[in-house]
Amino acid sequence: MNWQMARRAERLNPSTIREILKVTERPGIVSLAGGLPAADTFPVEAMREAAARVLREQPREALQYAASEGHAPLREWVAQQMSAQGLDCDAAQVLITTGSQQGLDLVGKVLIDPGSRVAVESPTYLGALQAWAPYEPEFVAVAGDDDGPLPAALEAARGARYAYLLPNFQNPSGRCITAARRAALVQAAARAALPIVEDNPYGDLWYDAPPPPPLAALAGDAAVYLGSFSKVLAPGLRLGYLVAPKALYPKLLQAKQAADLHTPGFNQRLVYEVIRDGFLADHVPTIRARYRVQRDAMRAALARHLPPGCRWTTPAGGMFFWVELAPGLDATALLPQAVAAGVAYVPGATFYPGAGRANTLRLSFVTVAPAQIDAAVARLAGVLEQALEACA
Amino acid sequence: MNWQMARRAERLNPSTIREILKVTERPGIVSLAGGLPAADTFPVEAMREAAARVLREQPREALQYAASEGHAPLREWVAQQMSAQGLDCDAAQVLITTGSQQGLDLVGKVLIDPGSRVAVESPTYLGALQAWAPYEPEFVAVAGDDDGPLPAALEAARGARYAYLLPNFQNPSGRCITAARRAALVQAAARAALPIVEDNPYGDLWYDAPPPPPLAALAGDAAVYLGSFSKVLAPGLRLGYLVAPKALYPKLLQAKQAADLHTPGFNQRLVYEVIRDGFLADHVPTIRARYRVQRDAMRAALARHLPPGCRWTTPAGGMFFWVELAPGLDATALLPQAVAAGVAYVPGATFYPGAGRANTLRLSFVTVAPAQIDAAVARLAGVLEQALEACA
Repeated sequence: MNWQMARRAERLNPSTIREILKVTERPGIVSLAGGLPAADTFPVEAMREAAARVLREQPREALQYAASEGHAPLREWVAQQMSAQGLDCDAAQVLITTGSQQGLDLVGKVLIDPGSRVAVESPTYLGALQAWAPYEPEFVAVAGDDDGPLPAALEAARGARYAYLLPNFQNPSGRCITAARRAALVQAAARAALPIVEDNPYGDLWYDAPPPPPLAALAGDAAVYLGSFSKVLAPGLRLGYLVAPKALYPKLLQAKQAADLHTPGFNQRLVYEVIRDGFLADHVPTIRARYRVQRDAMRAALARHLPPGCRWTTPAGGMFFWVELAPGLDATALLPQAVAAGVAYVPGATFYPGAGRANTLRLSFVTVAPAQIDAAVARLAGVLEQALEACA
Repeated sequence: MNWQMARRAERLNPSTIREILKVTERPGIVSLAGGLPAADTFPVEAMREAAARVLREQPREALQYAASEGHAPLREWVAQQMSAQGLDCDAAQVLITTGSQQGLDLVGKVLIDPGSRVAVESPTYLGALQAWAPYEPEFVAVAGDDDGPLPAALEAARGARYAYLLPNFQNPSGRCITAARRAALVQAAARAALPIVEDNPYGDLWYDAPPPPPLAALAGDAAVYLGSFSKVLAPGLRLGYLVAPKALYPKLLQAKQAADLHTPGFNQRLVYEVIRDGFLADHVPTIRARYRVQRDAMRAALARHLPPGCRWTTPAGGMFFWVELAPGLDATALLPQAVAAGVAYVPGATFYPGAGRANTLRLSFVTVAPAQIDAAVARLAGVLEQALEACA
């Protein structure tokens, strides 16, 4: 049988990262390639108690079909959290999603026509590019510096369906947009009548100081905000949310219904039971403390081992260092040598909407212990030194 | 801010059924409108034990990011079940989905271009129409009789991207396709080079005799098969699966990744723990026994109360009776009177791909006790009699 595919299926492709991760499962390789949180941070005991409570006190509600909007108390919780961050919203604007990846898919489904322009940071979150590619947009790269995307570059994207911005400790670059730049970006977007899709999976994982308030707090009805429980609780429950302006909410809700009817009610009630009485206020600092030590270990290792000509900025939060190699080095071409030397990373080129910068790579510091981080970075440095010698 | 919607968003609409269900929450109304299984059938004790076991023995694996394909032992279980039903497949062809609704969405995303023809039964499952509408197909209604869709009508849909068939106790009509008709349909589809998308949420809920083997067992690589744990365990976990030919699997997998990365690993492990040692062989017969009694109660009530001119066929499984009223009666127009009389149903017109037959309606027998079923059908009969008098 000859299955005729839709044109959009041509834009679906195997994930480069998945392929890399398969390689890194070989024994002896220390992987700095992953995008996973550390499983040791999952609050297993709290989950166990909450699961037992939900299945004792509200089993039929948790196991039955449920509202597409999400579990009402959880929506209320999200609205309160957002309001505390300056985003004036109510629970009716909150849509619970099957991970924030689904939020990205719904946004694309509702807003992207084939040929629509979508403005994205460069580099940007690969999962968003993958979610949207099948809707056949034309991605427009917004140039940036260490403070974030440039307002003038954003304004030049006028006419795009929206600008996708990751203000806090972006995956992959680790960059946090400064408060002043946030204000300037929201103003530039308003001048260009450009809606904002703000994605914030990492905002709670700050190691030096909390990030500035969300863009949505400044942009109001001109922004959709996406959040997630994956990094502060556990990703395997697939629980995220979005907060949408009232003009957009109904279509996102209908797209949600069409996509999977609703996010698992059991998972929503489980997470609500865990967090309802302030659990995260105690739990998240334990994740921060752990990841901060590992971030510092990687900072020290990079300074200790990497050869001259490499550049990186220490991320103030999140999970990743972004390293720029000497011009002329190609991180994709070097990966097999790195794997042979016992270390893996993700080449940076994969995170760009168009042609990527070949001399960049992403390193995760959260799943590997400090001593191993040092050893892994030393191995990487050896590979880079050999490559530099070969160039010289 | 003026959010510009994608053209496909015009095809997203509020669910008629949801609107009806809101009305039926008023006190005093007996609702035969729902599409929910009876919550009393959920195996809460088994879920409780399995949840505790998963969070004791494999908490980090259950709570971490996981493979987009699904949990390997669960995929193996599905492949074995399908093979036992004559569908020769292996676990590599099984994709675990976030409910079988997501399976429908993925199929549409990968196979439908704007303007593609998609052949559907008439009436058909509303959730499929909703999942696919945003991909902008042209639905082609395949005429049928009490044995199922007509092979000649299917063959006439030549050139469609696929034919969507629900062989077992279809929602809404309750109709089960006979074994002879299945063979004839698969042959007709092969002659027309028309792939089959087979959806089987209700096959295990048979009350008289098990249904014939799936179409996919006859069609092989010319069919995608969708299954679900919603009706035999609980829908609130959102756990379904699809079995796809090898030519189609990679694109469905990439679409799955883009949609929500993976189905919650905790839920997959929970369900696998419940079912791995044969639980369903004891559990499903208890659901059948319960629903059979309610099916019989509704059959008796319809025969006892409905006025002359109404037609219905007793479903041999599933959850619904499909009632055809006397010509000239409009079930949508009569619904407010029925609700005023204390009974709700879903007008049949909503289940058709195009203009629906106004004199049809769907009644669920699974969530209402036998005595209430009789009272509700009596109320419905009163409304119909009044309407008939008004017509006369």
